[in-house]
Amino acid sequence: MKIAVDAMGGDHAPEHPVAGAILAARELGAEVLLVGQENRIQDALRRHSSAPDVSIVHADDVIGMDEPPATALRRKRNSSIHIAAKMLRDGEVEGFVSAGNTGAIMVIVKLYVGTINGVDRPALAVILPSRRGRTVLIDVGANIDPKSHQLVEFGVMGSLFAQTILGLSNPRVGLLSIGDEASKGTGLVRSAHSALEVSPLNFLGNVEARDIYSGNADVVVSDGFTGNVVLKTSEAVVETMLHLLREEFSKSRLNMVGARIARSAFTSYRGRVHYAEFGGAPLLGARGLSVICHGRSSARAIMNGIRVTMEYGRHRVNDRIEEMLAGLVLDPNHERKSQ
Amino acid sequence: MKIAVDAMGGDHAPEHPVAGAILAARELGAEVLLVGQENRIQDALRRHSSAPDVSIVHADDVIGMDEPPATALRRKRNSSIHIAAKMLRDGEVEGFVSAGNTGAIMVIVKLYVGTINGVDRPALAVILPSRRGRTVLIDVGANIDPKSHQLVEFGVMGSLFAQTILGLSNPRVGLLSIGDEASKGTGLVRSAHSALEVSPLNFLGNVEARDIYSGNADVVVSDGFTGNVVLKTSEAVVETMLHLLREEFSKSRLNMVGARIARSAFTSYRGRVHYAEFGGAPLLGARGLSVICHGRSSARAIMNGIRVTMEYGRHRVNDRIEEMLAGLVLDPNHERKSQ
Repeated sequence: MKIAVDAMGGDHAPEHPVAGAILAARELGAEVLLVGQENRIQDALRRHSSAPDVSIVHADDVIGMDEPPATALRRKRNSSIHIAAKMLRDGEVEGFVSAGNTGAIMVIVKLYVGTINGVDRPALAVILPSRRGRTVLIDVGANIDPKSHQLVEFGVMGSLFAQTILGLSNPRVGLLSIGDEASKGTGLVRSAHSALEVSPLNFLGNVEARDIYSGNADVVVSDGFTGNVVLKTSEAVVETMLHLLREEFSKSRLNMVGARIARSAFTSYRGRVHYAEFGGAPLLGARGLSVICHGRSSARAIMNGIRVTMEYGRHRVNDRIEEMLAGLVLDPNHERKSQ
Repeated sequence: MKIAVDAMGGDHAPEHPVAGAILAARELGAEVLLVGQENRIQDALRRHSSAPDVSIVHADDVIGMDEPPATALRRKRNSSIHIAAKMLRDGEVEGFVSAGNTGAIMVIVKLYVGTINGVDRPALAVILPSRRGRTVLIDVGANIDPKSHQLVEFGVMGSLFAQTILGLSNPRVGLLSIGDEASKGTGLVRSAHSALEVSPLNFLGNVEARDIYSGNADVVVSDGFTGNVVLKTSEAVVETMLHLLREEFSKSRLNMVGARIARSAFTSYRGRVHYAEFGGAPLLGARGLSVICHGRSSARAIMNGIRVTMEYGRHRVNDRIEEMLAGLVLDPNHERKSQ
C-alpha cells in the first residue's frame, strides 16, 4: 500500500515530514512517496544516515500555512497537495498524510478526489481524549451548512472508523445538541435525530459536549461549524488553564515540583486535545484516506498519521462504509430510510 | 427599586436564595421580595437572627430543576417563576433573580414579560473569564435558530451591558465564527456580519473561541445553539482537566502542596467558567431584568445576581438599548440599516 506524504506541509517542513516518513518506513514497513520540492527533500534525507528506500515525487509549488484555501486551490496547481490529491484520485497511492494548511487540503481533496459511493461530501473527524478512552468527533469543519442526511453519513463514517481504527465493537453514536431530549436543538439537529434513529447505528440520541469528554459516546456527530467551535473552544480553554497554572505556580516559587507535575500532565493533555498531534484528523468519505496532521507535528506524529492511513486501508474501511450506506436509502428530505 | 427573588429556585432552596436576599438587603440596601411558599420562606428566615425587612409573596407551586420547561409553563401557573414574571410584566418589580430551572425561566419570562422596544426576542448572556478581564457571550441558549437581525440586537444588548455593568468604555464586539475572514461561517454568520459591519457598534468582525478567553473581544455574539455549545464545552474541558489533575497528584502523594495550589487555582477558575456562579446570566431584552444564577449558587452568588440587577436598573440599560436600536432600521431581510 503506497502512501503519499506531503513533504512541504507543516511548521517544520520538510524536516519533520521527511523524518516521519523515514520512521514509518523503518518501524511500520510503510511504502512512502514524499511529495514536494525534490532538492529540499534530498537535503532533508541526507541528514538521516542509512535512510530506507523512500521515493520522491517532485512538486514545484508550496502552499503556505496561512494561505487562503481558495487562492491556493487556483494558483498553486503544482503544489504538493494538488499532486498528492491527483495521485489519490488516480489510484497511484491509497493514502495521503499532510501537516499542511488544513483548509487547502480539504478544498483540494474535495475537488480532485471523488467521494466513495453513497457519500455526499467528505467530513473531517478528530479523535479527542475522553476519561474512558477516545471519542471521535465528526465533522469539525469540512461542511459548514450540511443537510441532515449528511449527518447520517458522518455517523456511519465515524462509527466504522471507531470500530476499525479504535477497536470499539459497537460504537455508541451521539448527535451533538444542547440537551438530551429529541426536541432540543436546531432544525438540522431535530431532522438528523429522526434519520439517525432509524439507521442501523448504535444511536444514543442527543448528547452534549460533556459526553465527548466523559466518554459517554464513542462517536459524536455534528455539523462542521459547531464541531469546529467545539474543537477551538477546547483548545482555548486548555491554553487558558495552562496559562493560569503557570501564573499560580510562579507566585509560589518554592513549589517547583508541584508545578512540574501539573504542567507535564496538562502539556500531555494539550497534545491530545490539539487533535492532529494525535494520529491526525482523517478526512473521511473521499477515496483512499487523507489524514491532516497538526502544523507543528513531530516526526512521530507524522508517523502516527501514516499508521492510521495504513490501518484504514488494511481494514478496507471505505468498502465497509459503502456497504453500510448502500443499505440505507436516504431520501432527499432525509426523513426515511429502508433496507 | 424592587427586586423579586425566587425563593424556590436552585439546589439549595429556599435556604440560599433567602440568605442571598438577606445579604443583599444588608450590604446593598436592596429592596427584595421573596417569592415562593410562604411557610418554607418563613422557616428559612427564622434561621437568620435580626433579618432585615424582607417581603414575601406567596406562590403555591415549585418548578423542579429538571422539569421540562414546556410542562412547567403550562402546569405550574402558580409557581414562583410565573408569579415573579407577572410582577415584572406589571411593573411591580424591576428585576428578577432566580437560581431555578434555566429553561423554565427563559420560557416563562419570554411568554409573560414583553420585550423592550426594538428587541425581537430576549437573549441569554454570560460573563466569561478572560486573561484580560471578562468577556460577554450572547446568546447562550434563548434563541436556537435566530435571524441575522437578532444577532445585531444581541450585539447592541451585549455592548451596552458590557459598558454599564463591566465598565468598558467602547466594547469591542466580535461575531463568533470559525475563521477571521468575513467569508467564513454559516449563512447566518455571513449575513449577520454584513449587518454588524454597518451598525454603530465597535465591530471587530469574525472572532473565534480563543478570542473569548484571550480577551481580544469584549462581547462575542452568537446564535443560542452555538453559544450554548461553547459554554458546555468550556465547562466539560475544565471538569476534565480538574479530574486529570487529581489523578496526576494522587500518583505522587508527596506533593500535597503543589496539588493544593493547582487545585485551588482551578476550582476558582471553574467557578468563573460555570458562568452563573459569577453574577448570574442576564436575560437581556425583556422588560426589567431577569438574572439566572447557577443551580448551586451560594448566598453570595445570589447577592451578586441582585447586585447586577440593581446596577442594570440604576444605569437604565434598557432605555439605552431602546435608544440605540431606535437608531437602526433593520429591514426584514436585515441587510441594511440607516440612521
